[in-house]
Order: sequence, then C-alpha cells, then structure tokens
Amino acid sequence: MRNFDELITKTRSQKSLSRLVIAAAEDIHAIEAAITAKKLSLAEPLYVGDETKIRKIFNDLNLIQPESEFVFNVPDPKEASRKAVELVHQGKADFLMKGAVDSKIYLGAVVDKQSGLSTERLMSHFSILEIPGYHKLIAPVDGGMVPYPDLEQKKDIIQNSVDVFHKLGYAEPKVAVLACTEKVNPKMPETLDAEALTQMNKNGEICGCIIEGPVSYDCAMSREIADEKGYNSKISGDVDILVAPNIHAGNIMGKIFTVTCQAKMAGIIVGAGCPIVMTSRASSAEEKLLSIALASIVAR
Amino acid sequence: MRNFDELITKTRSQKSLSRLVIAAAEDIHAIEAAITAKKLSLAEPLYVGDETKIRKIFNDLNLIQPESEFVFNVPDPKEASRKAVELVHQGKADFLMKGAVDSKIYLGAVVDKQSGLSTERLMSHFSILEIPGYHKLIAPVDGGMVPYPDLEQKKDIIQNSVDVFHKLGYAEPKVAVLACTEKVNPKMPETLDAEALTQMNKNGEICGCIIEGPVSYDCAMSREIADEKGYNSKISGDVDILVAPNIHAGNIMGKIFTVTCQAKMAGIIVGAGCPIVMTSRASSAEEKLLSIALASIVAR
Repeated sequence: MRNFDELITKTRSQKSLSRLVIAAAEDIHAIEAAITAKKLSLAEPLYVGDETKIRKIFNDLNLIQPESEFVFNVPDPKEASRKAVELVHQGKADFLMKGAVDSKIYLGAVVDKQSGLSTERLMSHFSILEIPGYHKLIAPVDGGMVPYPDLEQKKDIIQNSVDVFHKLGYAEPKVAVLACTEKVNPKMPETLDAEALTQMNKNGEICGCIIEGPVSYDCAMSREIADEKGYNSKISGDVDILVAPNIHAGNIMGKIFTVTCQAKMAGIIVGAGCPIVMTSRASSAEEKLLSIALASIVAR
Repeated sequence: MRNFDELITKTRSQKSLSRLVIAAAEDIHAIEAAITAKKLSLAEPLYVGDETKIRKIFNDLNLIQPESEFVFNVPDPKEASRKAVELVHQGKADFLMKGAVDSKIYLGAVVDKQSGLSTERLMSHFSILEIPGYHKLIAPVDGGMVPYPDLEQKKDIIQNSVDVFHKLGYAEPKVAVLACTEKVNPKMPETLDAEALTQMNKNGEICGCIIEGPVSYDCAMSREIADEKGYNSKISGDVDILVAPNIHAGNIMGKIFTVTCQAKMAGIIVGAGCPIVMTSRASSAEEKLLSIALASIVAR
C-alpha cells in the first residue's frame, strides 16, 4: 500500500462494517473519532460507559443521539472495560477502543485470564506510517508495549506484524531486523537474535514473510547504500516492517518519523483476540481515525 | 549554529589553519577531501603513507604535488598510523584522519597505551547534523563507538559532546537523555541512568550544559507535544544533544536523520588527545569535508 488513502479505500470496501466498541465512551475525542469513522463507513461504533455523560457529549456536539441498542450504560470505567471485552466475546463487537479510562485498568480487562482476550501470542504494539519520501507504508515495531523482547517475543512481534500485513493484502511482507551493524557479533545479543530470526524464516518456523537481519537502518532502507557497503539483500530499499531491538529504539524510531519526518501514523495493539485501538492523549484526530480504519480491517 | 554554512565560516575564521594528518594517505577519497579542505582554508593536510602511491594519485588527479615537508614516506599502514599519532604528539599535526588502513589497525595506534592518544576520558563518536525542518544543528550520540554505555560512560559521552559544543561557541548546550518515556521506571535501567545524569548536572558533577531526562523523543523535540503531555521542560523543542540509550538506538537515530530526513552530517571521534576523522566507505565527499571542518575547530 502506497499511502493511507489506499488503506481507507480498503476499509470502506469491506462487505459489512466492523463494529467498534468504546470502553468508558464518555470521552469527547473518542466520540468524535467514532462518529467520523461511522460517517466515512470505516466502522460502526458501540458505546459502553456512563450513558448520561455520553448522551450529553452528543448533545453538546449537536450530533444525532445513537439508538439505544448501541449504548450500554456501565458508568464504572473498570466495569465498562469488562463489558466492552464481553461484547467482543459475544460477537457483538469486532474491535476495542479506549475511552475515558486509565490504560492500566483498560488493559487489565483485556488481559484478564478468565474473561479477557489474551491468546497464546504475545500482545505487541503495531504502528504503520506514511513517511514523506518513502514509497509505501512502513511499520516500525515495537515502540510501545514490549520493553526488552527476548527471541521468542521478537518472533511473536514479527508474526503479529506479518498477520496485519496479510490482512492488508500483502503476500510476503519484507521484514528488517535492525541493529547498528550487518555483522553478527557475539557481544551484541541483538545481532544474535536477528540472525536467529532470519534462520527461523529460512527453515519455515516464521513464514509468510521475508526476514533479513541483523541489518543497519541505512542498508535496510537504501538499496544504494546497501550496494555501496556490499550488503547483499533481497529487501533493501523496499522494507515493510522495521523490527527494533528494544522499546527505546522502537519508540525513538517511530517518533522521529512522526515528529521530524512529519509522517502520518496508525497504531493498534495486536496479538489479542481482537485489535485494540489505544491512542494517546497527544494523538491527533487523524491518527485516531487512521487507527480505527486499520483496526477495522485487521478485525476481519 | 543554525547550519553547516556557519560551521564552515567559523572554521575559516580561525587565526591559523589546523593541521590534519592522514594515516595511510594513499587513498583517493581522503586526498580529494584533504585538497578540498585546503582550498577552502579548513585545514592544512600532511600525508603519511606510501609516498609513491600518494604522488601517483596527485598526478592522476592533475593536482599540484605537495611539498616534501608535508609528505612522510611510511608505506606500512600500521606504521603510518603510528607515525601520524607521533606527529600529533610532536605538535606537528592537530588532528587525525583515516586513509587506506583498516579501522582496527588505525584505532590500535590511537589507543596504544605507550604511544597513543588515549586520555582519562572514554573515546566516543560524536556526530552533528543539519536536519531539514529543525532550526539548528543537532548531535545524536553515540551511534558508532560505545555499545552499551554504563552510567559513567554516558557521563563521558555527554562531556565529550558538551566539550565540542563549547568549542563551537555554545555556553550551555541543551542535552536530552532519551528513553521511551518521561517516567523513571526501576524496570528500565535507561530511565534510572537518565535520572542520575540529570542529578549529576544539578549538583555540578556535569557542568557547562543543561541535562534533562529521561525524556521521549517527541517531548524532547517538540515544545507543543511536551506541553500537551504536561512535560515541564527548559529545553524542549530546542535540544542540541540527543543521548541515545545504547549504540543500536543511536545508530538507528542517526541513520533515520541522514537517510530518511536527508540530513547532512559531520562525524568525529572525541575523547582522545585530538579529534579523529573516521568516516566510512559510504560517506559522501560532503560528509568528509564537513567532518574535517568540525575536527579543525575542535582541535583548537
């Protein structure tokens, strides 16, 4: 996919709308994002939370009130989070979005062993960006969820990300496992992990993608530099997924793209029973909308 | 400094030219960079290496041959590296540049305990960039030399970098110690180090700069985002030095700037008895020249 316009088009071309459930929906920004998503045929929102407050926001914004079947009056944010998760379990909703509830409480409902949405797969943060100057969407992972992933966790982060690309229509996304070098160095565990992941890909343990690493950012992103450095690569200059060695590198990477490269971004949590939209306070309305559009496809 | 034009102007305004010595100077790219530097009054080059090969390159390039006092015939690259270091010790040269010699051999001569240029300070890589869209030069460190710096090593990396900014004329460069968050988290040693460095700055153990951290890239680089997130900062949006938690993060950061943000870059090794230019094969002629201009100022 070259850009987010194509993502939006793909979301809108779904046969039926994915249903989005907002936990603690008494949040003006969440409601605005949900209403815009509905208008653009990206998702059908359900609202779980303090119904009086929710309806007041609709009133204040001069919006048509949602029908009663789309609103669930559960004023306590913790209970609202549980209820939202339950609606996913019951098949009444396809994906989750956070409203006016603390992230820890919200994720607590998601990871609850009895009633939550955990799977055998590690949950990780997936972000995809439209960067001016790069010819297609690119996904730096994981800059928001898994602090110091070990080899197995990196495998899960990659598989979670590859699954998203498959949903977007890619047959074999191209994955670069980043380090500061292309050389495997026993003193740098990140390079050993990268080599192991490349091997797992070769022997079919991680499939549906092409993995290369360890590789430095410049060799991954520029075929010209890779050629100059004599780095032989199938994916150089055409990477879809950039795997960071840890959360700090991943977070810095994503934020350079958005803050300094003026990239647009969509972000969701993956690896749970359904995609989860959990944008931050500082997220723009556009980022929220693009995240919903992404989740809406991934939920199918 | 807003850009590299100002750096070049500052270098040219020095009362006398810094003298650059190239170890194993039988390298066409090194000679071209040195000759351009001389033409632009950035440095006066000395050549140590295989004199026959050196003079042949001058001949091939139709350049005026250097006078014999500027050429030292030491054909073996290891010996040439030692000789270049010796010239610095003797006060005959002010800074070093690598020619056609393996990095390890070259650095071996620099760090040699008997005859080298080691100091009590850790050696680290310093890079400074002109990034389109940012209002001044900025230095991401260390992406090339110190793999997993501990607290003391981070202190040295910061002091090395601050020293460079003082040479550039800054009274108090602004230093952001990056992590994925602004919150100190005992499970993330990078955040503890960042807090400790900030404290060392407050109690005068690291002086001549303003240090803040832990801080995420977006809060460091955007005053608007810092305000939205309620991050109270003296330096947000006006940072001079970005300290990476480790070499992978630092390397990825620097390369996103140069490859994806089309930043121009100058890079030197600092913390030794003199600045050391050690650009890579993939470095552009412009990067080599800017690195010489930077080293030329720092050498004074």
